[in-house]
Amino acid sequence: MKVLVLNCGSSSVKYQLIETSLEAIEKNEDHALGRGSVERIGTAAAVHTFQAAGRDKVTDSKEILEHRDALADILRMLAHPERGVIAGPADVDAVGHRMVHGGERFTASALATPEAIRAVQDCVPLAPLHNPSNLRGYEAARRILPDVPHALVFDTAYHQTMPPVAFLYGLPYVLYTRHAVRRYGFHGTSHRFVGWRSRVLLGKPREQTRLITCHLGNGASVCAIDHGRSVDTSLGFTPIEGLIMGTRCGDLDPGAIFHVMHAEDLSEHQLTTMLNKHSGLQGISGVSNDMRELLEAEAKGHERAKLAIDMFCYRLRKYIAAYAGVMGGVDAVIFTGGIGENASPVRARSVVGLEFMGLKIDPAKNAAAAGMEADVSAAEASVRTLVIPTNEELIIARDTVRLVAGAEQD
Amino acid sequence: MKVLVLNCGSSSVKYQLIETSLEAIEKNEDHALGRGSVERIGTAAAVHTFQAAGRDKVTDSKEILEHRDALADILRMLAHPERGVIAGPADVDAVGHRMVHGGERFTASALATPEAIRAVQDCVPLAPLHNPSNLRGYEAARRILPDVPHALVFDTAYHQTMPPVAFLYGLPYVLYTRHAVRRYGFHGTSHRFVGWRSRVLLGKPREQTRLITCHLGNGASVCAIDHGRSVDTSLGFTPIEGLIMGTRCGDLDPGAIFHVMHAEDLSEHQLTTMLNKHSGLQGISGVSNDMRELLEAEAKGHERAKLAIDMFCYRLRKYIAAYAGVMGGVDAVIFTGGIGENASPVRARSVVGLEFMGLKIDPAKNAAAAGMEADVSAAEASVRTLVIPTNEELIIARDTVRLVAGAEQD
Repeated sequence: MKVLVLNCGSSSVKYQLIETSLEAIEKNEDHALGRGSVERIGTAAAVHTFQAAGRDKVTDSKEILEHRDALADILRMLAHPERGVIAGPADVDAVGHRMVHGGERFTASALATPEAIRAVQDCVPLAPLHNPSNLRGYEAARRILPDVPHALVFDTAYHQTMPPVAFLYGLPYVLYTRHAVRRYGFHGTSHRFVGWRSRVLLGKPREQTRLITCHLGNGASVCAIDHGRSVDTSLGFTPIEGLIMGTRCGDLDPGAIFHVMHAEDLSEHQLTTMLNKHSGLQGISGVSNDMRELLEAEAKGHERAKLAIDMFCYRLRKYIAAYAGVMGGVDAVIFTGGIGENASPVRARSVVGLEFMGLKIDPAKNAAAAGMEADVSAAEASVRTLVIPTNEELIIARDTVRLVAGAEQD
Repeated sequence: MKVLVLNCGSSSVKYQLIETSLEAIEKNEDHALGRGSVERIGTAAAVHTFQAAGRDKVTDSKEILEHRDALADILRMLAHPERGVIAGPADVDAVGHRMVHGGERFTASALATPEAIRAVQDCVPLAPLHNPSNLRGYEAARRILPDVPHALVFDTAYHQTMPPVAFLYGLPYVLYTRHAVRRYGFHGTSHRFVGWRSRVLLGKPREQTRLITCHLGNGASVCAIDHGRSVDTSLGFTPIEGLIMGTRCGDLDPGAIFHVMHAEDLSEHQLTTMLNKHSGLQGISGVSNDMRELLEAEAKGHERAKLAIDMFCYRLRKYIAAYAGVMGGVDAVIFTGGIGENASPVRARSVVGLEFMGLKIDPAKNAAAAGMEADVSAAEASVRTLVIPTNEELIIARDTVRLVAGAEQD
């Protein structure tokens, strides 16, 4: 089955065409036939990049004013006589949509029925920047591919198993009942994928695993997975809370916000922009939001690059220890995302001092692990440390297949 | 030496007269001769309550318009022919002032020189509600007792040993250099006292202890004490961050703040009031900010009282585990403050699940410990759990004596 996976932002569409089936999932043999993106939608110089598996990347630039035009261009690209990977739009069997926010309504992926779409619309106040773009992409795709199943896969759904002690804030309770203010968490698709994959690698069933998954990309979050279920995670009501991220601040004294606003004479919009786009690794280091560049700068003696990396690792270490506390111990810690998969010094520095919990990395194995599955634990460690590349698009395609087939979402 | 210990708020003065000396400190034999408070300063019906040690409490009501008048009334009360404990003001040998915020300038208690007072004034922007009242009390006391030494003991000073990875936020670095926005922490006097006392009880020197001190009162914070030094603490730039408190929210997604403001149409002032005075245990339970009342309500089946207590304990457990991670392990966890000293169910529920770290409470010992020093650890625990009543006034008196004698502040 060929599933077109779509991730629609306000002015971009990222996509993959993935060949998968229940049998391929079982064998972990499903794969992308091609992937691409359309950026700068709404301009006369939108950029469409595409790469068929095993072939060179191609780039087009043209006027693309709406998501609908972008979708049409994507289908033309996929079916391009020379560059393409399918004969025509009829070869697309289903569409899987990445949706940011499913609120409390979506505890799993769902087929895009009219009722489900209305429920996603109801979640717009919780994700005013993301859900409208996701919906716009959905509507465009539905118009172009009206006769195939469309599935909705949410960043938040996996975390809906968190108990109230973990998802509520210390605010007046009425803010939860009246405005749904609570921790939702994000990156759920990624945490779920690497959690599943780690159980396969460890050869253990859900019931015997307490996992801590660290999704470390430009956005970053940690998740405590007990018996296969998310029981706590570091991103919250919004994707600002928790770890230090590329440009987001993470945990911050709520009392500091107005002080900063007044001290710097910022508007609410400016402050929000600062917390989202000028903080985190970028704000601390003053150099970059990119961990690779920071590690290079640190090696050359840049003190604030070192500080930013140290803070990133220190906060992650606190979360790993806290989540072990939440679950009464931990069996494996999993690193994923661009930083988690590739930055071996970050992995090493984030677990240093956690030997008392049974966590210890083998320096040589750790240094060798980059962008591929690896067990980097020291021989004497009682807690495994794993590196597992994430693949959110694959999960979206798999959930789409499972929904179409009526199979369980693992 | 008789030290008058003062804690001046905007419309109140709390005080104790403490008999102490370097020798009495060594023997832990120093004690209060009397204690009292003047409330509702600035009104025609201020209330002055006083209790000499071992005698009944007395209460006066009269017009007291300024801190200076309150101080004069306190000295009259202390020297009252029947109720009093001294012959006259000349018997007061020194004054110790509780100061909330010493910024980065004060890393220890200090004698109140003109230079020190100017430095406290410089810290007013960091504690606009507290430092001015503290200073007003100081000025009044200095005028009434001009010829004795006055000492300044700061809530923040003990935490000045935190490293940058612990005290900086993930904000643009310039907010630290330009506006001193960082974690300061509070309750330093209490954390320091119970840390010291636990080392005495454990019979271990600073160098051999990694402690986690939990100060749980209406305000609450946790502190990681490594080798006798605070290395991390849960209160931050303001006293809102960290644990769930009686009426304060503690940790909160910074991205939720403006959402709540708009959803409820609150002004900045209303929102700040909500986070400080209507959140925490009170806000979650809808019943009370008082842990005793919540435990009673829970016993009667009140679900949200149970939820508030569960959230309080859950968050504390996360901090204990995180701080063990910070220090590479922990030797003892200490409970203090009204809740920490008395609420045995809270102690038990906060460490449940931490057996994997060596932490285990003996249920009978725990249930028996209330308001007195006790080791409540299970026999097989490798980490001690201690209950130690705090005494911030005693520390203020002791630091005053030490400053006068030129002795080290332990």
